[in-house]
Amino acid sequence: MKKELIPKSQNLSQWYTDVIIKAELADYAPVKGCMVIRPYGYSLWEAVQSFLDPLFKLQQVQNAYFPLFIPESYLEKEKEHVKGFTPYTAVVTIAGGQELTERLIIRPTSETIMYAMYQKWIKSWRDLPIKINQWSNVVRWEKRTYLFLRTSEFLWQEGHCAHANHDESMKTVLWALECYKNMYQELMAIHCIAGYKSDAEKFVGGNKTLTVEILMPDGKALQAGTSHDLGQNFAKAFNWTVQDEEGNDLHPWQNSWGLSTRSIGGLIMAHGDDNGLFFPPNIAPIQVVIIPIFKSDNQKEVMAYAEQIRDKLSDFRVNLDIKSGETAGFKFNQWEMKGVPLRVEIGIKEVKDNSITIVRRDDSKKAMIKSSEMIQKIKDILEEMQIAALSRHRKFTEENTHVVDSYGEFKEIMKTKRGFIKAFWCEDESCEIMIKKETKASTRCLPIDAGEKRGKCIYCGKPAMHEWIFAQSY
Amino acid sequence: MKKELIPKSQNLSQWYTDVIIKAELADYAPVKGCMVIRPYGYSLWEAVQSFLDPLFKLQQVQNAYFPLFIPESYLEKEKEHVKGFTPYTAVVTIAGGQELTERLIIRPTSETIMYAMYQKWIKSWRDLPIKINQWSNVVRWEKRTYLFLRTSEFLWQEGHCAHANHDESMKTVLWALECYKNMYQELMAIHCIAGYKSDAEKFVGGNKTLTVEILMPDGKALQAGTSHDLGQNFAKAFNWTVQDEEGNDLHPWQNSWGLSTRSIGGLIMAHGDDNGLFFPPNIAPIQVVIIPIFKSDNQKEVMAYAEQIRDKLSDFRVNLDIKSGETAGFKFNQWEMKGVPLRVEIGIKEVKDNSITIVRRDDSKKAMIKSSEMIQKIKDILEEMQIAALSRHRKFTEENTHVVDSYGEFKEIMKTKRGFIKAFWCEDESCEIMIKKETKASTRCLPIDAGEKRGKCIYCGKPAMHEWIFAQSY
Repeated sequence: MKKELIPKSQNLSQWYTDVIIKAELADYAPVKGCMVIRPYGYSLWEAVQSFLDPLFKLQQVQNAYFPLFIPESYLEKEKEHVKGFTPYTAVVTIAGGQELTERLIIRPTSETIMYAMYQKWIKSWRDLPIKINQWSNVVRWEKRTYLFLRTSEFLWQEGHCAHANHDESMKTVLWALECYKNMYQELMAIHCIAGYKSDAEKFVGGNKTLTVEILMPDGKALQAGTSHDLGQNFAKAFNWTVQDEEGNDLHPWQNSWGLSTRSIGGLIMAHGDDNGLFFPPNIAPIQVVIIPIFKSDNQKEVMAYAEQIRDKLSDFRVNLDIKSGETAGFKFNQWEMKGVPLRVEIGIKEVKDNSITIVRRDDSKKAMIKSSEMIQKIKDILEEMQIAALSRHRKFTEENTHVVDSYGEFKEIMKTKRGFIKAFWCEDESCEIMIKKETKASTRCLPIDAGEKRGKCIYCGKPAMHEWIFAQSY
Repeated sequence: MKKELIPKSQNLSQWYTDVIIKAELADYAPVKGCMVIRPYGYSLWEAVQSFLDPLFKLQQVQNAYFPLFIPESYLEKEKEHVKGFTPYTAVVTIAGGQELTERLIIRPTSETIMYAMYQKWIKSWRDLPIKINQWSNVVRWEKRTYLFLRTSEFLWQEGHCAHANHDESMKTVLWALECYKNMYQELMAIHCIAGYKSDAEKFVGGNKTLTVEILMPDGKALQAGTSHDLGQNFAKAFNWTVQDEEGNDLHPWQNSWGLSTRSIGGLIMAHGDDNGLFFPPNIAPIQVVIIPIFKSDNQKEVMAYAEQIRDKLSDFRVNLDIKSGETAGFKFNQWEMKGVPLRVEIGIKEVKDNSITIVRRDDSKKAMIKSSEMIQKIKDILEEMQIAALSRHRKFTEENTHVVDSYGEFKEIMKTKRGFIKAFWCEDESCEIMIKKETKASTRCLPIDAGEKRGKCIYCGKPAMHEWIFAQSY
């Protein structure tokens, strides 16, 4: 592997695809718009699963599996929903050598097929809530695709719950969003803004969409996970009622929430530098890489010691690089590019001194430490790096969140440095449309903790109650 | 849920689908031949994953994800392979609102798409072996389907490795088979026969297929996991060469191995009785169910004690059934049907005595034990039940394995009691075809430990070297 990475500071977009391919996170598939997630990239997704799945189970959400195929007529049951997804569907028309009488849609999301089953299973309030999640692949055919961030097939989890009343359903909606926020902060060291989507930006078929938005280094926002209050819309569209406690018919209140492999794209882009990736220790597939440095006369001694060190560091995700035919310098660059948080160098000096030399990926600081103290030291340093990475991204987000009160300033910012803009908006869709047309910035969300204020719409000047977050987006 | 189960002893096939639906393991999906795996059934698959995945990782197999879609031309690269799968494919012809120029096959298996990528990535012997596994859905359009055992879409894992030589590749083939065998024995308490498939029954495109076969209560065999030595067939079909140590071109030696949700069908069928399912404790989603039995004047006391017991039994997968509106007797039947290995009954007598009453699902033995001793006792009983279940299935398999040396006897057995038949076969395909035509029994495998013997083909009487296992199959 040659190291010819476009510097991140010079061309983010090129760096992004470059580093994904060169670090072997993913590759382009032979099918347009699809990607192969390679082991190094897939292990990031496994880490996301390992973080979220136990949280779901603690909340009595159970995993299940629903079919890949949705009969066309099912997708059509909810009017807004079908309108939103139809342009992006992949359609099976032939199966088992025969033309199908009803075409099958590859699921772009599973509301319709899942709720048809819920309707069959749940007839009484006693059986509510039902809380089901599935880890699966979905397909939304995209014209312009981007590794991880927008691919025609992607992996995700989709949670789908139904409750006896709206309050309970909203609690689940907010809980799911909280899970996502925690995942980004604790696992990925990414700061995010949680809030409500505008009506124009919400999930098609739902009542309210909540979102976590993260700011990328180029000042664009990434919608990084969503949780939808579906109200009774789907229950009504399916004509699904259950008996309530008094024996009356009740349309259950539903919600759905999803987070996808897109999150991995956010992780890659949020961190890293001109030299390549940086993975926060909590999610790093390899936390510590050991590189032995030897000459022919001390190879055996150095290698034996390096193996000992590796065995002692088994609390960490550790890798001893024994590949032959590559210089130590080449290896340094390679593992730097691959974003491993801590490099351990072991040469004859370290052997004699019963020490190791450590080099941090984030600030390149180098230190020689006694092997007797290394476990605690490394633990401390990894924790420090995790915290520092989150602080860095939070600081970046704050520094690039601009409170503006003139539309001129708004336009200027979107033309130059971009970032989040906090501005009053009257919540009239026509202003939202014009702002997007003129600045490419859309409403990202109304932060959950925004509260009511009094101001004037940044576009039309009419009274406005809330400061919204605007940004250009991926 | 009403308990109106067809007795297993009376009609296995009806019992099987009945118990799956009634115990809420799965349900029919609105798409023909597809199923919904409900949470109780899906947790069985999660247990299979939790057993196998760490074994794979210990062997340096890494998880990855390849696209759902295979361009039609890719599937066509290996001639036998495409012939074998084409009748069963689902085909996407429209995507994003447009007719596709090249039709996309929903993966029936991923050899072709994965090896196209391997070819791109691996150019040198230094990068071999490559060992990748994926957990995914696949589609093989079936005319006659059967819950879990044969569905048009199913879940599986598929491992795909490439090695520098045949020996190493064969080691992986055998290792994978061993993983499957261990999973059946240790997790599912199912005895299985590991062996080689005949050429007619092997994987299309491979050289040799190894299989684990399990005997079902009706005397039919279930092919329960396979591991394929692909030789250099795919490498040659793709024209994939790597440089070997001497700088010469080498076609890598490949293997693939898979185990699917079909295994869950085997689990359901192998165990259980007229009263419903029986899950061996190691795989049981719920190992211990606690049923409180109370009257209105002692409800509070009994419930409080039952909750205490549940909390103390947190080493086990435990469930306290607090559902109102159902009698204790109804609950007994329901949890029996759902296959929970151990029932704990708690009434006022148990509260006063600081005891619990336990009832085993396998032999219905009942005992009252002191709560101070219950953790160890339950641990012991669950272990005992696991071992007993495996012994039972091994004994059943042995008692229904018939060594025959006349074709008349062969036919008679297949007409009446069925089971495995051990018989010499000359390994000529024409005999295999005639036997299948006349008895519906196919060669299941040549057991790995069979060794060479001298005998006469059960069909044609010509000299034969090996005793094969024959059976009718699912």
